[in-house]
Amino acid sequence: MSGGNEQDVYSNILELAKKRGIFWGSFEIYGGLAGFYDFGPVGVLLKRGLIDAWLRTFVYSNDLVVEVETPMINPRIVFKASGHEESFMDPVVECLKCGRIYRADHLIKEAAGVEVEGWSPEEMRKVIVEHGIKCPECGGDLGKPFYTLLLFKTEIGPYKGEVGYLRPENAQGMFINFANVLRMMRNKLPLGIAQVGRVARNEISPRQGLLRLREFTIMEFEFFFDPEEASKESAEYIREVEDRKVRVLTSEARLKGVEEPAEYTVRELVEKGIVKTPWLAYWMGVGEAFVESLGVPREKVRFIEKHPHERAHYSLQTFDQEVYTEKYGWIEVAGYAYRTTYDLSRHMQYSKADLTFFKRYEKPVERTVSKAYPDPARIGVLYGEGRARIMEKLASRTPEDLYRELSGKGYVEVEGVRIPPDAFIVKQEVERVHGEKIIPHVVEPSFGVERLLYVVLEHAYTVRDGKVVLRLPRHLAPYHVAVFPLVAGRRPEHARIVEVARDIYRRLVKKGFRAIYDDDGSIGRRYARADEVGVPFAVTVDYQTLEDGTVTVRDRDTALQERVSVDRLEEYFLEKYGRQPL
Amino acid sequence: MSGGNEQDVYSNILELAKKRGIFWGSFEIYGGLAGFYDFGPVGVLLKRGLIDAWLRTFVYSNDLVVEVETPMINPRIVFKASGHEESFMDPVVECLKCGRIYRADHLIKEAAGVEVEGWSPEEMRKVIVEHGIKCPECGGDLGKPFYTLLLFKTEIGPYKGEVGYLRPENAQGMFINFANVLRMMRNKLPLGIAQVGRVARNEISPRQGLLRLREFTIMEFEFFFDPEEASKESAEYIREVEDRKVRVLTSEARLKGVEEPAEYTVRELVEKGIVKTPWLAYWMGVGEAFVESLGVPREKVRFIEKHPHERAHYSLQTFDQEVYTEKYGWIEVAGYAYRTTYDLSRHMQYSKADLTFFKRYEKPVERTVSKAYPDPARIGVLYGEGRARIMEKLASRTPEDLYRELSGKGYVEVEGVRIPPDAFIVKQEVERVHGEKIIPHVVEPSFGVERLLYVVLEHAYTVRDGKVVLRLPRHLAPYHVAVFPLVAGRRPEHARIVEVARDIYRRLVKKGFRAIYDDDGSIGRRYARADEVGVPFAVTVDYQTLEDGTVTVRDRDTALQERVSVDRLEEYFLEKYGRQPL
Repeated sequence: MSGGNEQDVYSNILELAKKRGIFWGSFEIYGGLAGFYDFGPVGVLLKRGLIDAWLRTFVYSNDLVVEVETPMINPRIVFKASGHEESFMDPVVECLKCGRIYRADHLIKEAAGVEVEGWSPEEMRKVIVEHGIKCPECGGDLGKPFYTLLLFKTEIGPYKGEVGYLRPENAQGMFINFANVLRMMRNKLPLGIAQVGRVARNEISPRQGLLRLREFTIMEFEFFFDPEEASKESAEYIREVEDRKVRVLTSEARLKGVEEPAEYTVRELVEKGIVKTPWLAYWMGVGEAFVESLGVPREKVRFIEKHPHERAHYSLQTFDQEVYTEKYGWIEVAGYAYRTTYDLSRHMQYSKADLTFFKRYEKPVERTVSKAYPDPARIGVLYGEGRARIMEKLASRTPEDLYRELSGKGYVEVEGVRIPPDAFIVKQEVERVHGEKIIPHVVEPSFGVERLLYVVLEHAYTVRDGKVVLRLPRHLAPYHVAVFPLVAGRRPEHARIVEVARDIYRRLVKKGFRAIYDDDGSIGRRYARADEVGVPFAVTVDYQTLEDGTVTVRDRDTALQERVSVDRLEEYFLEKYGRQPL
Repeated sequence: MSGGNEQDVYSNILELAKKRGIFWGSFEIYGGLAGFYDFGPVGVLLKRGLIDAWLRTFVYSNDLVVEVETPMINPRIVFKASGHEESFMDPVVECLKCGRIYRADHLIKEAAGVEVEGWSPEEMRKVIVEHGIKCPECGGDLGKPFYTLLLFKTEIGPYKGEVGYLRPENAQGMFINFANVLRMMRNKLPLGIAQVGRVARNEISPRQGLLRLREFTIMEFEFFFDPEEASKESAEYIREVEDRKVRVLTSEARLKGVEEPAEYTVRELVEKGIVKTPWLAYWMGVGEAFVESLGVPREKVRFIEKHPHERAHYSLQTFDQEVYTEKYGWIEVAGYAYRTTYDLSRHMQYSKADLTFFKRYEKPVERTVSKAYPDPARIGVLYGEGRARIMEKLASRTPEDLYRELSGKGYVEVEGVRIPPDAFIVKQEVERVHGEKIIPHVVEPSFGVERLLYVVLEHAYTVRDGKVVLRLPRHLAPYHVAVFPLVAGRRPEHARIVEVARDIYRRLVKKGFRAIYDDDGSIGRRYARADEVGVPFAVTVDYQTLEDGTVTVRDRDTALQERVSVDRLEEYFLEKYGRQPL
C-alpha cells in the first residue's frame, strides 16, 4: 500500500506513481528500457502545470523573454559549431569477460571512492589498476576507459541521408535563430529566447529513475544582453527582487571546505561581485521564488557555483540550483550558465552569418576616417589600356578599405597588379557614426521538468491516518475538483443523485475546470483516491442535495466539509482558484 | 509588403509568418534543411492555443479520454510489432547521372499523370520506361524504383547500443500502455488514451512547407471499446451531436465518380451504415465542430472515405477530414481510422503480455467444463519410481488443460512420456463464469497541429485598407491585448502616459492575460502590427487618461474604439474572453 510509511518516500512515490498514473518505466511489456519514462493521465497534467507555471514566471509575465520551438533533429553542423560533437562525452569502460558497459567515472567512484570527473582515459585506467577494480557483475577484468559521444545519431533523408543528431538541449535552436528573432522583436536588447522542448541524451547506463533520462523535457532560455549596459538595463528588474534571499555556496567557499550555503540578497550577489553579471543574480532571484512557489521549502534549496573543471565547455560561470531529496541528497533542478559570446561566435564562424546586434549610440559619434580615392588620371598614365578594368575593380571596394590596404602594405593589389600610392588621392574625412556591431553576452537559466516533478512530488507527499495526501500547491493540482454521487444504486433517489452529480460535473467541465467524476466504491475510498493525486476539493451530492440544493465541498488539506449551494459552485471554485481569461 | 494582395494568400502567409515570428524554415543560417520548420514567438502561442482547444474538446470535456506522454525514441521491437518496419515505406528513384533522389510515385504523377500509389517497383519501372521519364534536374536516366523505410533510425546506448526508431505517430505509446492505463482508470471501457507529441518521418523530399514535415506534432487518441456494446455505450454521446451535419464523400461514391460530398447528420452516418462503428460517427461529429470552432467555414471541410488500397496497413475503415486551401486544394488535417484489434493483437503476439479487457457479464453464466484429474494409483502402477516426478509435473497444469490435451491427442505428454487416458479420472463440472477476456476495438482520430495551424491562418487572413488583419477566433489569439502609450517622448506628461501604460500592462499580465507592450512608431503602425498577428484588443493611454482615468479600447475586427475606465479594464477583458480557473 502506498500509505505504508515503512519504506522511504522515494519508494512510496514510485509506487503511488505507478498505481495512480503519474509515471512508470517505458516499454514495460517489452521488458523496459533504461532511461525512458511514460507519464500517465495524472503525470501529464502535473507536467503541464509545471510548464505553465514556468512560462508564466519566466515568459508571460515580463516583456524580456519570448518563446520559440525548433526541431529535435539537427544537422551535424549545428553540433560541430556548438562544440558538442567534440565535448559532449562521457567515459565508458567495458568488461573484457562479460562485455557489460559501465560509466567509468561512476564505477570508479563507487568502487574506490575516487572522483575522476574530467580525467583522461589513461588517468582513469591507472586508478582501476591501482585499486584492482573489477566488473561488479562478473568479476572480470576491465578494459581501458574511453570517451564516447552522448548524442543520438541518425540520418536525415531516408536513403543517402546526411548525418544528424537529436539535440541534447534546446539552446542551439535559440542561438541559430538569434538574428531572426531579434529582428522580429524590433532589434532591442536585452532579449530572452525561451524554449520548452524534448531533448535526448544517449546516457551510458541511466539508473536514477526520473533524475537521469535518455529523453526528457527542458525549459530554458538564452538571455541576450549587452554587457556594457547590463548594470543600467537590469536595475529596474533587480529592484523587483533585490531583497529576496538566496542560499549560495560559492566555488571559493567550496574550495575552503565550506558545506553550508550562505544567505545573500539578490542585491548582495551583485554588489559583492559573487555573480559575473547582474542578470545572473536577477534570474537566480526569480528562479528561487519559482521553486518555492512549487511547494519546495526555502531551506531545501541552494545554489552551488561550479568549479571551472565542472562547468560545461561554453560557460564562464555556472550556478546549479539544487533541491534536497531524501533518496539522492542534493539534486540539480536548474542550471544558470553564463555562456558569454561563446555560442554566437561559434555559429558566426561556422555559418558565416551575421549574428551581431547593432548597438546604436545615444548620439552619433564624430570620427575622422582616412580614405583613399583612385586617381583616374594617374592610373591612365600607369596602365593605359588596362585602366578601365582596374578602375572598375577599385570601384567595387570602399575608400576606407583601399586606405587600409595602402597604409598596411604600401600598395593596393588588383588581379595581381600592385598599384602604388601615387595612384590614389588620400583624404581625412569627418564622419558621423551611429553605432557599432557587438556580439551579445548570454545567460542561460535551464530547468529539467521531470526533476522538478519529482521534487514537487516528494515535498507534496504526506500521510494522514495511514493514507496518502498529495498536498500539491493549488495551481499544480492535476484536477480542480472531484465530483461524487454519495450513492449510485438503482433506487429512484439514487438515480436523482447521480443525475445531479453528472450535471455538476458537466457544468464545471464546460466552465474550464478539470474535473473527475467517480462513483466507484465507498465515499471514503473516493476521498482517499482524490487525496492521493492531490485534488484540492471534492464535491459530494447526497440526499440533502435533493431537499435543499446544497452539496458538501471537502477540502483536501483539512478534510473539513462545508455545504455550498449547487447554484454557487462555479463561483465558489473560481474564487478558490482565481480567474484567468480563456 | 504582406498587405499586397497581388500574390496568392499562401505566399502572403509565408511572408507574414517570417516577418512576424509565426514560422520559418529551420537552420536558415546553415542553408536550411527541407522538412523542418521553426515556430517563433507568435507561432508558439498559436500552436499552444490549438493544442489547448483540442485538449478541451477531446480530453478535458468528457470522461472518456485521458492523456499520456511516451518517448519519441522507441526500441525496434515496437515498430516490428506495429508493422511499421515492414510497411512504413515510400518508393524512391535515383538519377543514374546526377545521383539526385526522388519520390518515385510523385515524380511519375508529375511527369506522366499516372497515379501509381501502392504499385510495385517493377510496375513503376514500366511506367518510367514507357513514358520516357528522365531526371527533371539533369535529364539523366532513372534507375529502378525501390521502397525505403521512412523511420528515423538511431542506436540506444552510446556504444554497442541497440537499434531504435523515432516514432512516426504517437499511437504505439498508447497501445503498449493499454493494460496499464486501463487498470489506472479502474478497468472500464470505453477508454480513450490521447497523446499530443512530436513525431518524425524521414520523408524523401519534403517540399510543401508546413504540410509535409520531417518532424511535427500530432494530437491523437486511441479509443478502445467493446464492439458488442458500441451501440449501447455510444448512444448517450451520439445524442449530443446527432443532428450535426457532416459532409462525407464515401469510397462507394468516389468509385462512381462523385466529387461533391453529401451531407449526413451524425445519426444518419450510423443508421445508414456509412460508418463501421457508431464511435467513428461520434468522433467525426465532434471533429467537425472542432474544426469549425477554429474559424474554418463548414463548406470548406469534408470527410473522404479512403479506398482500401489508400488505407494504412492497420485500418478497416478510414475517413480523412480535409480542408480546402487556395494553394494545395483539399488537404488532410485529421484522419479517423478504425484500427479494430490489429495493434493490440500484434503487441500481444510480440510481447506475450495480456492486453485484453475482462468483460464482466451482468450475471455469471453457468458452463459445463470437462476436467481430467491424474489418478495417483494408476500412475503408481504404470511408472513405479517415476510416479512422484510425473505427479508433480501434472500438478503444475490445470485439469481443464489436461483434458484438452487428452481429448485432442489421446494422451498427455510429460517430459517425453505419453500418459494414457486410463491414468486420468475425467469429470464434467458446472462452473460459474463471471466474464471473458476480449481484445477491444480501436478508433483513432488523429490531427496534425501544423496543418491545422496553416488552415487556420489561411482562413483568418484578411486585408483591410491594404493592411493585413488576422481575424483569428478569440480563443486562438496569441495575445489577449496590446497596450500602447499614445506618445513616449521625454516631456513630463509623456512620462506619465508611459507610466500608466506600463502599469496597465503589468496588471493585466499579473492577472493571467498574455499582453504585449509597444511604444515603437506611430499609433497607426502599432495598431497595424497588432492586427497582423490577430490581437483582438488594443488599449491606448492618451492625454485624456491623465484627466479622467479612461483609455481607448480598439476592437481588431471593427477597428472601432470605446473609452473604458482603467479601473474596469481587467473586468472588461474577463468578460470579453470568459473566465476560467487558473
